[in-house]
Amino acid sequence: MSHGGPAVSAATRDLALRQRATRVVPGGMYGHQNAASLPADFPQFLERGRGSRIWDVDGREYVDFMCSFGPIVLGHAHPRVEAAVQAQSRLADCQNGPSPRMVELAERLVALIPHADWAMFAKNGTDATTLALSIARAATGRAKVLVAAGAYHGSAPWCTPRPAGTTPEDRAHLVPFVYNDLASAEAAADRAGRDLAAVLVSPFRHDARHDQALVDPAFARGLRGLCDRTGAALILDDVRAGFRLDLAGSWEPVGVRPDLSAFSKAIANGYPLAAVVGRDALRDAAARVFATGSFWFAAVPMAAALATLDGLQAERGIEAMVRAGTLLREGLARQARAHGLRITQSGPVQLPFLSFAGDRPAGADARPGQSASAPGLRFERANLFTGEAARRGVWLHPWHNWFLSAAHTQDDVRLALERTDEAFAAVRRAFGPDA
Amino acid sequence: MSHGGPAVSAATRDLALRQRATRVVPGGMYGHQNAASLPADFPQFLERGRGSRIWDVDGREYVDFMCSFGPIVLGHAHPRVEAAVQAQSRLADCQNGPSPRMVELAERLVALIPHADWAMFAKNGTDATTLALSIARAATGRAKVLVAAGAYHGSAPWCTPRPAGTTPEDRAHLVPFVYNDLASAEAAADRAGRDLAAVLVSPFRHDARHDQALVDPAFARGLRGLCDRTGAALILDDVRAGFRLDLAGSWEPVGVRPDLSAFSKAIANGYPLAAVVGRDALRDAAARVFATGSFWFAAVPMAAALATLDGLQAERGIEAMVRAGTLLREGLARQARAHGLRITQSGPVQLPFLSFAGDRPAGADARPGQSASAPGLRFERANLFTGEAARRGVWLHPWHNWFLSAAHTQDDVRLALERTDEAFAAVRRAFGPDA
Repeated sequence: MSHGGPAVSAATRDLALRQRATRVVPGGMYGHQNAASLPADFPQFLERGRGSRIWDVDGREYVDFMCSFGPIVLGHAHPRVEAAVQAQSRLADCQNGPSPRMVELAERLVALIPHADWAMFAKNGTDATTLALSIARAATGRAKVLVAAGAYHGSAPWCTPRPAGTTPEDRAHLVPFVYNDLASAEAAADRAGRDLAAVLVSPFRHDARHDQALVDPAFARGLRGLCDRTGAALILDDVRAGFRLDLAGSWEPVGVRPDLSAFSKAIANGYPLAAVVGRDALRDAAARVFATGSFWFAAVPMAAALATLDGLQAERGIEAMVRAGTLLREGLARQARAHGLRITQSGPVQLPFLSFAGDRPAGADARPGQSASAPGLRFERANLFTGEAARRGVWLHPWHNWFLSAAHTQDDVRLALERTDEAFAAVRRAFGPDA
Repeated sequence: MSHGGPAVSAATRDLALRQRATRVVPGGMYGHQNAASLPADFPQFLERGRGSRIWDVDGREYVDFMCSFGPIVLGHAHPRVEAAVQAQSRLADCQNGPSPRMVELAERLVALIPHADWAMFAKNGTDATTLALSIARAATGRAKVLVAAGAYHGSAPWCTPRPAGTTPEDRAHLVPFVYNDLASAEAAADRAGRDLAAVLVSPFRHDARHDQALVDPAFARGLRGLCDRTGAALILDDVRAGFRLDLAGSWEPVGVRPDLSAFSKAIANGYPLAAVVGRDALRDAAARVFATGSFWFAAVPMAAALATLDGLQAERGIEAMVRAGTLLREGLARQARAHGLRITQSGPVQLPFLSFAGDRPAGADARPGQSASAPGLRFERANLFTGEAARRGVWLHPWHNWFLSAAHTQDDVRLALERTDEAFAAVRRAFGPDA
């Protein structure tokens, strides 16, 4: 694992692929994995993954702290999951009807998640948040939904952070509130009045380009009370955090149970699957909503999900992520201090985020969908830091939360910290220490 | 392969799974694969698939003429596709960025499809139709879209055939026309006026519960002219038919090239993938739309798609489907005639549909999303026919088009026809011959 060479962007294979992609893919790449929004030291194209490590198309190895933006929760190509996938693949995947795995997985989620009396499956996280909202609307006969300003709930026209290609009607029934500000949610509910169908909320504040914020338990309880009072459904968008904080649902430790939860990402260790689970009171509405997709009932991702849940329990995966995440956080804090750099680390250690005090212009507030290079937003230190880390074989992200997996060992973190120390040194050299 | 026993619905394992599913899945099952909308002789749960054959959870074997509602185009577990999947799986699937397979696949589609200058990928057919519409709106700055009444373009709130859980705003910009009726499309365009962003159309009329209709080439040319005149984008929804009629796009034989095409289903022989391809004029708009999903850039389905396209070309897959589909159509026509039953077979032989004249009450017209048992709609003969066929090991569908694959041999069709002859006999016994 040598990273002393030239920056990745100059490497032959990645650059050649980028040039080819420019001709046949709009913008050369799109979506959350577009390397154009990352420092030049990041590659665009990846080749291989095993456990906590990934390799780009030029053979450079990285300790992976993005985990494919969440899906990889046990580590890349986890033996237990791969074995289950192989076994199911020998039978069938996408058929004229579901396989027994669908019943087994629904039973498993119902057993695991206290507020789940039933489960439905889809492919994308956006499918799950959209379906949950549709179920709430079908159940209540109402239209409005409270959403936290700046929160990400998917890429469909009703929730996309970027307006291109959408119409005003797509967002006609969204009523914004401020995360962790119960009064703002109560005021939003008043604005929605008798047309309030749902409150859609993430288990903690994990808006891109912002420091994260754990949920205030009083806020969570307040939303529960608001929904009980108004008859609206409380929908937890557990797509990003699900199965990393608590296998019973991310608000179970908070003591607040939603009516519906949307899951995806980590549910099947990288295999494409999403799920909505809900309470009995919403079962009939769920059965009335038209919800389907060509690949939604395929067996292999469900077999992978069963094995992923097995693995998370057998390996005490969440404890492993907490252990490694805590080591990483403590190490980064120590290093930043030693270099005289003020940083903020926020969110759960399993889904950490790091920002530099010097990167934040006073009073500037990012809008969702705004690119890292937009005026008023600066990630110079974060870009330099994560770029230097990437050059040295540690995959972080300058403006999106990171993800730990159960495959991260103490040695992985120690190795990563050796390199981040050099990355912090580069930041200090370029920008000087913070006052 | 014996089907002399009791009806499948009484079989132990399927029934036991259905009962378990009733507790943990709303309605016991949902979506297009819900066996509740099928005759009782169909199982709900499937176990295995190979080539043209599938097996249910009670070990019953079927010649499969649904092909998982389209995705299976080369046959179940096709060796070439499975080998490509195995090879890619040994490297990686869902990573922090795409693999080289994404560039290769985009290049392949651009080379294969004359109107494709670029490609984007997603998971669901609905993702692709939604993205295509968003691109058209971003490009034109307009909102309205012409859609054929009764056509299916996906399960998102804007296009779902069932209103439960949707709001009027979801469909605010849809302007209906009648398929193959150019005057109705021109009138719809007049209603949309200067706000017309797109015309969204399937390559032939394949509305569920209706006889199919091939496209009138003059109608297709007329839509092309309408779009050229108004600056709207012509979007071909090739999700269902793509890669079964022509590898260059389903309207290539018609001589009409759309601006955007949406693909999914058959593109990767069952692996979850969707694609939008488009012309250069829409490239910038495509790059501006926020389009992303956790699993959209995964490598395995793209490797499967490359192998599927290889396989379709190497095996002359479309010719094979035409051959088997023609034999099936001719055989069914002969049998129906011999039994004195009037049937209509419609659509391309690769995506056939069969209806019974006796099933259609005069003047009744199905609305999309209406269930087969809704008042005014009767599929008694089709239900009996397909149920008797299912009991005998031939998987058809009473009210949705069927799908051929390149794995269907002359022997498969001959075997299927032996059983459909008995199924027609049962229809004649129950309902008598047609006048």
